Amino acid sequence: MNFSSKTIENAVNALSGFPGVGNRSALRMVMYLLKRPVEEADNLSRVILKLKTELMQCTICCNISDTPVCSICNSVNRNRGLICVVEDMMDVMAIENTAQFNGMYHVLGGLISPIDGVSPDELNFEELLNRIQNDTPDEIIIALNANIEGDTTAFYLARKLQPYNIKISTISKGISVGSELEYTDEITLGRSLTARVPYNI
Amino acid sequence: MNFSSKTIENAVNALSGFPGVGNRSALRMVMYLLKRPVEEADNLSRVILKLKTELMQCTICCNISDTPVCSICNSVNRNRGLICVVEDMMDVMAIENTAQFNGMYHVLGGLISPIDGVSPDELNFEELLNRIQNDTPDEIIIALNANIEGDTTAFYLARKLQPYNIKISTISKGISVGSELEYTDEITLGRSLTARVPYNI
Repeated sequence: MNFSSKTIENAVNALSGFPGVGNRSALRMVMYLLKRPVEEADNLSRVILKLKTELMQCTICCNISDTPVCSICNSVNRNRGLICVVEDMMDVMAIENTAQFNGMYHVLGGLISPIDGVSPDELNFEELLNRIQNDTPDEIIIALNANIEGDTTAFYLARKLQPYNIKISTISKGISVGSELEYTDEITLGRSLTARVPYNI
Repeated sequence: MNFSSKTIENAVNALSGFPGVGNRSALRMVMYLLKRPVEEADNLSRVILKLKTELMQCTICCNISDTPVCSICNSVNRNRGLICVVEDMMDVMAIENTAQFNGMYHVLGGLISPIDGVSPDELNFEELLNRIQNDTPDEIIIALNANIEGDTTAFYLARKLQPYNIKISTISKGISVGSELEYTDEITLGRSLTARVPYNI
């Protein structure tokens, strides 16, 4: 692109670093900002900096948090006997949005992935094992992506948890609610057949 | 969305103000920034502020510029007898990218649009008329969008230019280069018929 202004070129380059944002979208963002009041750019600039300076990791569940202990770990209304192990904050939010879970979380901070160079010692397994030793929860729910990285991490975690003699479960896989059999991919459909459950009237 | 962190919620809200960026994309942007080095967030924060503090309007062509006179108006290699009137900086960039134009620009800063409440006196017509009186260019090319606002603005401008006894032209409309007749919409095809040009061998 031919930029007539260096300031705009720098802004476009910085914004187009975001995933899914190309040069054109970045330029549209810049043009939008130019039309908005200076307070809005000021606020945006401030919140971006705060992301890197004011956030920390919750000392209990390892989720991203504003405070040393996050709001979920701090809550008195949650079941401390149940720990749901997830990959990252997005998964915590997804499960919280279901309003079906009232236990605690443990955020691994990633999934084991030899291709991306992520090994188990970069993830928060130690913190989880310490929690189990100290708090002796009743059940660990493994809620990881249904792909190779998720399966590998789940297997690794289950092996690590074996000595603790604790109930381990994982979220069910099967056809999506509301979807039709004929449009479900064969692997999912096959898995929902082998993992069939009793029909309760 | 259920945010466990106020800092993240603020950042998502600020980023989702951008056109075409929803809550989900904004959250993905935030997660991306969290994984990047602090210098990157710092740089992004700085360039956003600069957009509102360091940019000005070129005193000649009214384009957005880093300096009181923009690089195009400052160039000695351009034909000062030719002024191309466009809506905004994006159009200047689009025409520059064609590498087919070596004249000057005049940026109106918008199009006349009663629906959006944009009246002619909010646009840079006066600046253009002053330029014409002082510099007496040979030709004005009207290069505006091929829609109602563009046509209205072009008509208004042509009327304003009439007393100056100057050559006025506009960019040609017709079927896109590389496109097929049968897939061209009927208005464009009709216009390309009535606006047919001599076939030069």
